[in-house]
Amino acid sequence: MTLRLHDYLQSGNGYKVRLLLTQLGLPFERLEYDIVAGETRTPGFLENVNPNGRVPVLETEEGELLPESNAILVYLADGTPFLPDDRLGRARTLQWMFFEQYSHEPNIAVARAWLHVFDTEMTEERRTALEAKQRLGYEALGVMEEHLEDRQFFVGDRYTVADIALYAYTHVADEGRFDLEGFPAVRAWLGRVSSQLGYIPITRG
Amino acid sequence: MTLRLHDYLQSGNGYKVRLLLTQLGLPFERLEYDIVAGETRTPGFLENVNPNGRVPVLETEEGELLPESNAILVYLADGTPFLPDDRLGRARTLQWMFFEQYSHEPNIAVARAWLHVFDTEMTEERRTALEAKQRLGYEALGVMEEHLEDRQFFVGDRYTVADIALYAYTHVADEGRFDLEGFPAVRAWLGRVSSQLGYIPITRG
Repeated sequence: MTLRLHDYLQSGNGYKVRLLLTQLGLPFERLEYDIVAGETRTPGFLENVNPNGRVPVLETEEGELLPESNAILVYLADGTPFLPDDRLGRARTLQWMFFEQYSHEPNIAVARAWLHVFDTEMTEERRTALEAKQRLGYEALGVMEEHLEDRQFFVGDRYTVADIALYAYTHVADEGRFDLEGFPAVRAWLGRVSSQLGYIPITRG
Repeated sequence: MTLRLHDYLQSGNGYKVRLLLTQLGLPFERLEYDIVAGETRTPGFLENVNPNGRVPVLETEEGELLPESNAILVYLADGTPFLPDDRLGRARTLQWMFFEQYSHEPNIAVARAWLHVFDTEMTEERRTALEAKQRLGYEALGVMEEHLEDRQFFVGDRYTVADIALYAYTHVADEGRFDLEGFPAVRAWLGRVSSQLGYIPITRG
């Protein structure tokens, strides 16, 4: 069975997986869900694809359904040069991937979702919440900037799934009104990621 | 050099690491930081321990500083029975650990932090935010309940770091005003975790 990706084209989390699959040269089918229309919250999706109501979900060749973008990245990268093969290197890769899901994505991706994907109504309450996300998002970018000041990539000075995970929403941060002007090391790193062999843009299904 | 854990006793994220270290029989020193007093946001801490301003941070025998509780768990569990040694099993373990940091901790742990740890002032705005966290926290508990209805543990039907990660804040969810009454499978699983060999309570330093 071909690999299948339950996906949403605008999703940076989905893009992580599309990018790695393409760079690994693995063919896959893509099933598109309109999350704005609630297609990942239907009873059928919750029962048959992901009880947590989210994409991406990878359907493996054996028919196993695997949610959580960063778990999918590690699954696909296991045994390839995209995941370090030493214990500390693997842990450092995971460190940045957990940083991405806890300190980065909930701020930078969610700001983008409100302003760019969902066209969310900006109530007073939402505006206050957006300000908090801007502040915390810039803090996360600051942590990345400092780390990249004397490094080419996040772990072991080569391109890994830690870079893919952090690239996904950083390179479209402007769509959540983040300005990367003050983050030159991050901008240089974005350029290094986008010049990797087999790179595809987020708009490519 | 002995393993050192930069820690805060009330932290469930710190507890995850203390529990695993104890169950692995690894001796460690503990350095306590009062996060309520801002001790993880001082210039010294940001420069010398974790630029992201958070505990736990593990200091390895080689002096490497590793933040992110779930990355620390995988680092310590690597090559032990606490982490599955097959590719899909490892990915499923990570799936639940990313679920924990994205869908569970920001709701269940943060509600507990506000109500139990920081004694946060409950403004109107904070009360609205708490309601959202209650709703999303119960959603996460619902996903866990469904998964555990016909399983003993989260992955491969044996105790792994996925269980440790999810146990940490679930077993003190009442401190964030979550009622587990409607989640019998989760309650039974809590009992199985707390009867594992080498179990210690969250209050043990």
